[in-house]
Order: sequence, then C-alpha cells, then structure tokens
Amino acid sequence: MKNFKVIVSYNGVNFNGYQKQDKLRSVQGEIERVLKEIHGYEVKSFGSGRTDKGVHALGQVFNFESNLKMTGEQFKRAFNSLLAKDIYVKDVKEVMMSFHARYSSVSKEYRYLVNVGEYDPLMKDYVYQYNRELDLFRMIEASKLFLGEHDFKNFCASEEEKVKDYIRSIYNIDINKENNIIAFNFKGNGFLRYMVRMIVGVLLEIGKGFKDESFIKERLDSKELKRSNYKVDACGLYLVCVNYEE
Amino acid sequence: MKNFKVIVSYNGVNFNGYQKQDKLRSVQGEIERVLKEIHGYEVKSFGSGRTDKGVHALGQVFNFESNLKMTGEQFKRAFNSLLAKDIYVKDVKEVMMSFHARYSSVSKEYRYLVNVGEYDPLMKDYVYQYNRELDLFRMIEASKLFLGEHDFKNFCASEEEKVKDYIRSIYNIDINKENNIIAFNFKGNGFLRYMVRMIVGVLLEIGKGFKDESFIKERLDSKELKRSNYKVDACGLYLVCVNYEE
Repeated sequence: MKNFKVIVSYNGVNFNGYQKQDKLRSVQGEIERVLKEIHGYEVKSFGSGRTDKGVHALGQVFNFESNLKMTGEQFKRAFNSLLAKDIYVKDVKEVMMSFHARYSSVSKEYRYLVNVGEYDPLMKDYVYQYNRELDLFRMIEASKLFLGEHDFKNFCASEEEKVKDYIRSIYNIDINKENNIIAFNFKGNGFLRYMVRMIVGVLLEIGKGFKDESFIKERLDSKELKRSNYKVDACGLYLVCVNYEE
Repeated sequence: MKNFKVIVSYNGVNFNGYQKQDKLRSVQGEIERVLKEIHGYEVKSFGSGRTDKGVHALGQVFNFESNLKMTGEQFKRAFNSLLAKDIYVKDVKEVMMSFHARYSSVSKEYRYLVNVGEYDPLMKDYVYQYNRELDLFRMIEASKLFLGEHDFKNFCASEEEKVKDYIRSIYNIDINKENNIIAFNFKGNGFLRYMVRMIVGVLLEIGKGFKDESFIKERLDSKELKRSNYKVDACGLYLVCVNYEE
C-alpha cells in the first residue's frame, strides 16, 4: 500500500461544497468518482477540510491510499483526463503512510477578494462586489486584533456546535489593494466554518466607519455567545494552500 | 423622442449569444425585458452586432429610443438594478436621433485569450487552454497577412451565406504574452461570424509549426470556397469595444 498526497484546484461555482453529499455535486464526490474509475473499486479520499458552496480553491489537499503500481505523475495524468473541467490536479506525490491531509497540516492560507471598483459581470462569481468607500488603513489596524490565539465562537457558523473548541490561532493577516481589488490574506492553524467570511464582514463594517474596534474586542473576549452577523458571500473566498512540515 | 447609446458588458457563460431568441436566454432578450419593465411597453434595442454563445463583451453597444423623461444616468441606474448579474450597463448617454449602434460604427475591437501555462479551472470559461509550444514571433509575422482589406469568405461561418460580401478590413492585430496568457487583439471595420476565432485558430497552427504562411495566403487569395477549419472555442473571445466618430 502506498499513500499519495494530492494538491488540487477547483472552481467552486458548480459545486455544492467540498464534502461528499448524497445527491448534490461535490468536489470530494467528483474526486472519489475518478478514484473509483482508476481503481475499479471504491477508494476513500481524506481532505484537509471542507470548503463551502461557491468557495474556490487554488491548493486544496487530500490524500488517498492505493495498491496500484502507479507513480504520482501517472496518477496526476489519470486524474486530469477523467475529472470534470472545473477541477484540476496540480500535483500528486507519494508520502509516508502516516501522512493525513487533515491531521498532518500545520497551517492553512485563505484569500478573500473584494471589488471596490465598477461592477464587472465577468467576475461575478470570483470577487465580492462592495460599493462603499473603505478606509484601508482602519481595516489594517483593526485586523491586528484577530492575530494570535483567540476563541472564535462569535466568528463562526452556528452549525459548529459539534466542534470541540473554538480556539484558533491566526498567524498573519495581510490586506492590500491593487486595481480596485482589495485582497485579504489569512494564515492560521485552522479556520472554523464561516470564520474568514465573518472576519472580512466585520472589517468591511469598520472600513466604512459603521463599527469600531470595540466591536471586535467585545466579540473576541466575551465569554457568552454573541455571534457577529456580518458575513460576506462565498464567491470571494479562496483556499490558497495547506501547509505541512517538510 | 430621444435616442440613447448604451455601453454594456456581459459574461457570456449563461447566454445563448447576443441575439434575441424565442426560448433561449440571450443578452438582447434580457435587455429588452428590462426596457419593457422600465417603460411599461415593449421597446426595441439595436445592437452593434451579434456575439455567439459563450462569447464575452467588455463594451458591446446598443441604442434604443424612448420618450420617457429620464437622463442617461437615470437609465443606467434603472438598467443595473433590473438586469441579471451577468450583464452590466457601463454608460448610457443621449445621442443624435441618427445614431444607430450598428450602422454608425466605424470599427470594432476583439480580444482572444489563450492560456499556454498550466490549466486553471477558475478560468475555464474565460481563456482557451492550449498545451503546445508556440512560436510567438512566427504567429506575429503570419498575422500581418491578415492586415488590410481582404475577402474573408474562407475565414467565416458557412451560415454567413446571406452576407452581401465578405470584404472586411483589419486595421491592426497585436499579439502579446504575459504570464502564460497570449492575447490576440484585433481592430477592424467589421468581423464576420467566427472570423476572429478562425484567424486565431490558424495562427495557433502556424505557431506550433503545423502550417505555414502559404496556408493563409491561399485561403485569402483564392476565388473559390476553401474554408479554413481551425476554429478555437468561444470562451476565449471578448468584444472589447465598438468605435464611433465623435
């Protein structure tokens, strides 16, 4: 038996999210359909984590075990000839049997894109359109409050009830603007469902002057549940990469 | 009565082309649905020309006549609040009654995008993927054969039978490469159906060394019908703008 690590990019528009579902089209479902086609029998895949409906990935990671006599390069070619056009396998390589895309990961990077210029119908599924004047400096300052280890229970989906804890660490947040597109780049040890979209939502409120930093402090420090209700659309969100120790 | 010139951009993915059709979704159909909603009765629109299914536009132009007491700016806002998210009106301005989006145009510009780098599922509907080594210099040299006035009957769709003549002038072709994307920019007094896609198709054949310039010369000079059968996909094609005398 060999274990393979796969880096995959996908266009989230026509998927109902990453996780396999009974009737709806999912990234994992599409991957496992192809794994079955290659092997002739069902083969499980283990993703680094889910992404929601409409969210894109530049470098999602999953692993699978196989006893076929195929190299990573051969698997890559087989995947890309059988996968639908909205998924693309960038890399397949053999790794130690102990490697698990989810449990071995040390950090993840996400990007969120906001268009503050004129609306562009060609980008409708790829950036979030925002038509208000934003104070970039104010957002950058406020974003620093999220750095480090925090309890993010007020910045995640209510469905996250099953989660053991809401403690996550954000290592870095970089916000920059180029040609009317503001890019919010996040790096952290893990992200709860909706966490990036809720943080960006609050930063936009602060950027336009409707909220100030105390809103973030209160939500991060509060022992009680007081969920933020500013959540931006899935379309602007990209899972950039998942990092592992070499 | 007032006459308005409208500049509109659209994402071609979910349209069956520009021209209004009975049952299929079209750009013109969507525009006239909104014109009717604004006026309370049917109002015709006159486009600069059609674009095919899957083709995008950054600056398509149409005009319509109205007796409503609305300014161009008010029409722009009304359009954009009523149009689907894959069309966006960039500008509406009052023009002389004699203006006609099609007959008044003096030139059009088209762009065709080819990705010669790694496949990107996020761009699947926006660039044409081409995985062969291309000789850019050879394509630039060959493209010069198309400049000036020619009979393009061998570089258009067979459905163009109704067209009075196939004589068109190409004023400029600019080919450049940036980050693995080759952009073919065309400017001419008019383009037949499939003309840009067939010219790009032949230039790619020449770029990879499968054809040489004689193929173009023969097709351009020949009195008989000898249609080129290299036509690239609609997804990489953009109507950039339509030009008028000021």
